[in-house]
Amino acid sequence: MTAATADDAPTQVPVILGDRSYDILIGTGLIESAGETIAARYPGRAVAVVTDAHVGAIHAEALEAGLAGAGIRHQRITVPPGEATKRFAMLEQVVDEILAARMERGDIVLALGGGVVGDLAGFAAAIVRRGMGFIQMPTSLLAQVDSSVGGKTGINTRHGKNLVGAFYQPGLVLADTDALDTLSTREFRAGYAEVAKYGLIDDPAFFGWLEQNWRGVFQGGRDRVHAIAVSCRAKAAVVARDETETGDRALLNLGHTFGHALESATGYDGSRLVHGEGVAIGMAQAFRFSAKLGLCAADDAARMAAHLTTVGLPTELAHIPGGVGDVDRLMTAIGQDKKVSRGALTFILARGIGQSFIARDVDPVAVRAFLTEELARI
Amino acid sequence: MTAATADDAPTQVPVILGDRSYDILIGTGLIESAGETIAARYPGRAVAVVTDAHVGAIHAEALEAGLAGAGIRHQRITVPPGEATKRFAMLEQVVDEILAARMERGDIVLALGGGVVGDLAGFAAAIVRRGMGFIQMPTSLLAQVDSSVGGKTGINTRHGKNLVGAFYQPGLVLADTDALDTLSTREFRAGYAEVAKYGLIDDPAFFGWLEQNWRGVFQGGRDRVHAIAVSCRAKAAVVARDETETGDRALLNLGHTFGHALESATGYDGSRLVHGEGVAIGMAQAFRFSAKLGLCAADDAARMAAHLTTVGLPTELAHIPGGVGDVDRLMTAIGQDKKVSRGALTFILARGIGQSFIARDVDPVAVRAFLTEELARI
Repeated sequence: MTAATADDAPTQVPVILGDRSYDILIGTGLIESAGETIAARYPGRAVAVVTDAHVGAIHAEALEAGLAGAGIRHQRITVPPGEATKRFAMLEQVVDEILAARMERGDIVLALGGGVVGDLAGFAAAIVRRGMGFIQMPTSLLAQVDSSVGGKTGINTRHGKNLVGAFYQPGLVLADTDALDTLSTREFRAGYAEVAKYGLIDDPAFFGWLEQNWRGVFQGGRDRVHAIAVSCRAKAAVVARDETETGDRALLNLGHTFGHALESATGYDGSRLVHGEGVAIGMAQAFRFSAKLGLCAADDAARMAAHLTTVGLPTELAHIPGGVGDVDRLMTAIGQDKKVSRGALTFILARGIGQSFIARDVDPVAVRAFLTEELARI
Repeated sequence: MTAATADDAPTQVPVILGDRSYDILIGTGLIESAGETIAARYPGRAVAVVTDAHVGAIHAEALEAGLAGAGIRHQRITVPPGEATKRFAMLEQVVDEILAARMERGDIVLALGGGVVGDLAGFAAAIVRRGMGFIQMPTSLLAQVDSSVGGKTGINTRHGKNLVGAFYQPGLVLADTDALDTLSTREFRAGYAEVAKYGLIDDPAFFGWLEQNWRGVFQGGRDRVHAIAVSCRAKAAVVARDETETGDRALLNLGHTFGHALESATGYDGSRLVHGEGVAIGMAQAFRFSAKLGLCAADDAARMAAHLTTVGLPTELAHIPGGVGDVDRLMTAIGQDKKVSRGALTFILARGIGQSFIARDVDPVAVRAFLTEELARI
């Protein structure tokens, strides 16, 4: 496997959503060339670059040099890194800075960063002047394969994660795979949980490919571009079928109901548990719960957990430092999860690897019994 | 002309917007019967009633009795009356109370009140869980003929009015014309400015009808229902052609660029100038400006101003207590108006009564000269 070079043309993944269709470009050097790309696609528009202090310090200068070189008026807006930034006060601040920069409705909000920046900046783009232009430039693996595709934007509230937001599609996603080289191994792994998820949902061949080629994905080069492109295509296909999550888009939540409950139970403290780790444990729990319910072979649950373990991801509550409280706390966190539908519990369960399905009306008593067992494994 | 009775079936005005189409029902007794109406159209949904302290004290009990009678779970959320309520902090509070009431995505936010409540509650409905059900129950004339139809929701920022929000269509609008009997004459008149606007935009026959029948509209009964229904049909037709205001929906802004600037210049102080009064002066200015530019007969500008004066509406800067500052202040307020497009000034001008049009690239120098004349009339 040879590494991709800057000369390679980016891989283009279209997201088909009627008059809100857009392209995801995946490849190397996209941050440096973004000015040129934007000038060609959006002539005459100004750009508000929303980034966090960490990502901005690494990538903003290269991006801004390209914007300046293409004659694009631009303004940087910097927010603190971390999930706590996804809150009303920061939303108001970003909105205010966009307006202070005299950005008009046709101008562009560009999110340069991970999921937090993308969710916050995208929500700001959705609501300033009731909708500005929006470009995602995801710099984390998680954002490249998940949050930057599909138009979900939003913030957290004290009642839970992502409970306030908008469905707002970007006009363009530029996923620069070079940017992932600056991630910590822990952060890359967390994003990898979402990559593995696409195999576990409905693509057993891709899961098998990952079991064989995960080192190449971590290392960079063509394997990484391939894994990201497969993930984006999978997500784009689901989003195209169900933009606003009234139907099978919910499959993308595999591992997320348990995962969000764990994030809530750890107070969204990234030093203890980041989102992708919550999803990794949540997916392993979804498979174990499916096995316990007799829906899925125990071997499949063991196999998927083994792969997550191999790449260094957590799969058990015991892997969370500091614990997650008792079963009541977890049940409360699950009950408040936004995927609750009219009082019934909805989970994504599995009949095997690549055979996930939406289970509505899951008996809360069964969930409680399962979580009690899980807590006993600690 | 006889008064309408509670036995009259409401007038139904459909708003045709594809899968976001909805009905406006206009008539008497609709607040009392809302529980029944909602139970029939939205079985099993809970309702968060967002209202202000003033309107809530008058109408909420009757509404809630109907909701309770229809077996609908409901929760009242009260905000302070007045334009100052349309701000981030109040949005956050309303969102928080909706979530605290454990409202789910399929449940309904019901706005009971005027434009402020409708804009704020509608924006909250748009963003909680990325979009809940939404019903408008407008209790002011302004809200019945304008803000509750068309899906514009939002809040103000220090940079200007309605600069943050969403296009979010209600599922149903219930315009109870009885509710208008509790308005002050000043507030009714302010709403009447928007009624007259529909005649001035493109319906000279309706403007003529208003000149003959305005007393009936103020008094209540069938004339009032007729005027509201004609206004809603006019707005619905424009919105159906141009939901997100990229084209001729801008016609609805007749009087609003000047009007918003006056609201800004008076610090959104409703004791000095309410929105409809700003629109009345703004429309008179749009006609005088059109006449000055040689686009419109001076007689038409005088005729429309005379009718506004007859019903007791202001038409001159001199009618605003406390003044509006100098021409620089007004120009700044106009430049910041959200209807600026790529640096050029856009105004709705007129070739006559019922012959309004969108004028793009209006010369700021001509606007300044006109406003200097207007200030000299004080």
